[in-house]
Amino acid sequence: MSTKTTAGPEIERLIQLLAKLPGLGPRSARRAALHLIKKKEQLLVPLAEAMDVAVEKVGICSTCGTVDTSDPCTICSDPRRDASTILVVEDVADLWALERAAALNCRYHVLGGTLSPLDGIGPDDLNIGGLVDRVQAGGVSEVILAVNATVEGQTTAHFVTDRLAGFDVRVTKLAHGVPVGGELDYLDEGTLTQALKARTAF
Amino acid sequence: MSTKTTAGPEIERLIQLLAKLPGLGPRSARRAALHLIKKKEQLLVPLAEAMDVAVEKVGICSTCGTVDTSDPCTICSDPRRDASTILVVEDVADLWALERAAALNCRYHVLGGTLSPLDGIGPDDLNIGGLVDRVQAGGVSEVILAVNATVEGQTTAHFVTDRLAGFDVRVTKLAHGVPVGGELDYLDEGTLTQALKARTAF
Repeated sequence: MSTKTTAGPEIERLIQLLAKLPGLGPRSARRAALHLIKKKEQLLVPLAEAMDVAVEKVGICSTCGTVDTSDPCTICSDPRRDASTILVVEDVADLWALERAAALNCRYHVLGGTLSPLDGIGPDDLNIGGLVDRVQAGGVSEVILAVNATVEGQTTAHFVTDRLAGFDVRVTKLAHGVPVGGELDYLDEGTLTQALKARTAF
Repeated sequence: MSTKTTAGPEIERLIQLLAKLPGLGPRSARRAALHLIKKKEQLLVPLAEAMDVAVEKVGICSTCGTVDTSDPCTICSDPRRDASTILVVEDVADLWALERAAALNCRYHVLGGTLSPLDGIGPDDLNIGGLVDRVQAGGVSEVILAVNATVEGQTTAHFVTDRLAGFDVRVTKLAHGVPVGGELDYLDEGTLTQALKARTAF
């Protein structure tokens, strides 16, 4: 669908750029642009400012690979965090999800994706060397691989485990099972099998 | 759902503002913010610039009420447009949709909404006076009411027709019928009845 409007090249360009955001197509980008223009003072001006601030301040943590306005990031520079446990995730979004769960007061490491030979993504394209360096530097007793339960995620987990084999560190992974609030009827056979195998005392 | 991340108040604020766009909730706003930060040079920087330009340049056409970077807008100032026909729409998005169809080389008038007593939107909240002024100024032979086929749209159309009753101008409305490419089985009874009533020679 065309993004064409009658409103001049500046608005066209705004719509075209908005349409590149995940979750926005050409039609919703037009709606978003109109919404921004109509709410100029309440939304467009503050959003433009927030983006300028992000352009200026946001970067990648050189230790763990997350995005933050400081380097080392808020988590890596927090002395109250347990530095002996590193939770390895594929993406910053996964780190944020685990932080919302607030289950573990640990440090993180963001791989930046998964191994995917078909897409040309090899070990050197991921932040695996940085993880090995952190483990090699000492003080780490456990690395938890919190990668997605996909083929690519599991392949990456195996590769990372191999790379950490020489070090005195425990490598663990997330438990499989029934999601909290999940209904058995809607779950796949693989999940049900894993949940049965890993059953615990009631 | 919380928009909470670990990445500092600047990124929180960017996510909160993005979540106010139509079509983006808290989760997709987080994804959009991450996407922007990861594609800083390709997307975040140009989008921030496009928004700064929009803040500076975009305004409302004082003649027809559309958004544009010039006033009068591109359409109102185009001498090749037939100024004797005014196509009245509820919203700028409708104007853009009709322009993409490119069916009529006419002028427009944007009402900015529909009459809705329950929401406290009366005639003075819409750009109806501006339309009456344009008709009163002369040179207009037809006003086409291209409002939505909703109760509010039709109420607004009746009100606008009443206001234009004293002038020598033809007031028309869009045809009802089967959408091009539409399947009869999926259409409501109202549309089918209107399509039958307005049947034409094959």
